[in-house]
Amino acid sequence: MADTSSLDALIQALRRLPGVGQKSAQRMAFHLLQHDRAGAQLLSQALAQAAGNVRHCRRCHTFTEGELCEVCQDATRDVTRLCVVETPADQAAMERTGAFKGLYFVLMGRLSPLDGVGPRDIGMQELLARAESEGVQEVILATSFTAEGEATAHALSELLARRGVRTTRLARGVPVGSELEYVDLGTIAHALADRR
Amino acid sequence: MADTSSLDALIQALRRLPGVGQKSAQRMAFHLLQHDRAGAQLLSQALAQAAGNVRHCRRCHTFTEGELCEVCQDATRDVTRLCVVETPADQAAMERTGAFKGLYFVLMGRLSPLDGVGPRDIGMQELLARAESEGVQEVILATSFTAEGEATAHALSELLARRGVRTTRLARGVPVGSELEYVDLGTIAHALADRR
Ligand SMILES: [Zn+2]
Ligand SMILES: [Zn+2]
Repeated sequence: MADTSSLDALIQALRRLPGVGQKSAQRMAFHLLQHDRAGAQLLSQALAQAAGNVRHCRRCHTFTEGELCEVCQDATRDVTRLCVVETPADQAAMERTGAFKGLYFVLMGRLSPLDGVGPRDIGMQELLARAESEGVQEVILATSFTAEGEATAHALSELLARRGVRTTRLARGVPVGSELEYVDLGTIAHALADRR
Repeated sequence: MADTSSLDALIQALRRLPGVGQKSAQRMAFHLLQHDRAGAQLLSQALAQAAGNVRHCRRCHTFTEGELCEVCQDATRDVTRLCVVETPADQAAMERTGAFKGLYFVLMGRLSPLDGVGPRDIGMQELLARAESEGVQEVILATSFTAEGEATAHALSELLARRGVRTTRLARGVPVGSELEYVDLGTIAHALADRR
């Protein structure tokens, strides 16, 4: 396939996707070119648009296309409760429970020294400033119950305690070792009620 | 994430990729937007270029950007041997053995009645015409040793036999149930030598 530089370039580009190796990339490229060119064009456009339009909410750091995300713009939310989650997917899981009416701070990651992810990468300073300045009475640490999620929650709880901010953690109803977005909604709702 | 229609569109578009479900698509979108916007732009361009430029070789049906692929243009290849493979990846695996100097016909699939893939989809008429008309002395059926690959080889061998064309099949050194592109090169080379 030496004369198919567009095909080779596509296979290499598909390998930028997480979890996609050479064989998967070949299969994806073959599928799109042989069976779904419309899908290839659609994905091309969706990538360009998302990469161009999606940015971070100024307040909570989640993905949004405006200055502020919908939740942060919603005046009916309880500003005294701030829920800290790792990713927009985790936030969406929490929202689907319907059990939380407060606001969020989305870390867009978690502390991971081995991967070079430090306090700055998760917006820790902005989170601390926000927890202190906006009448927040409780910060719910809803990071994952993985080693890194726990370490992130621990570091945040210590820093917030020093500033006199009350923190809680989701109850351990959430299975240890799992990530929030994969947990069933009832368990999340229960863990929220039992927060300590 | 209700206000992130570009993000939602990206997640839906990623689901067009084979083997990618909702969770994988979310992770891919998150990764690209959070950590690799350059990768998103690159993939966008690669998809548009490949979907626009890649077409099928007029002679062998493999992917190419010209009228004829490189192998078909190569005047040093042995025109008396025609090797039938399912995909460009299978052809590439055969080429890497260095053991075959003939030409190819790439089915771009295999007969699969359950998936609605019939003779027309794999270019069977063009293959039969080519096998009869170009001084071909042997057609090597190198479809996969799966149920569908075997059925495809069987159908082709019967049609070619009626036309007086000699066919061989790769020797059964290739593990049954496996697909050619995953087989080690030595095994493929051995199976080629032992073709019957
Ligand atoms: Zn926000
Ligand atoms: Zn060709």
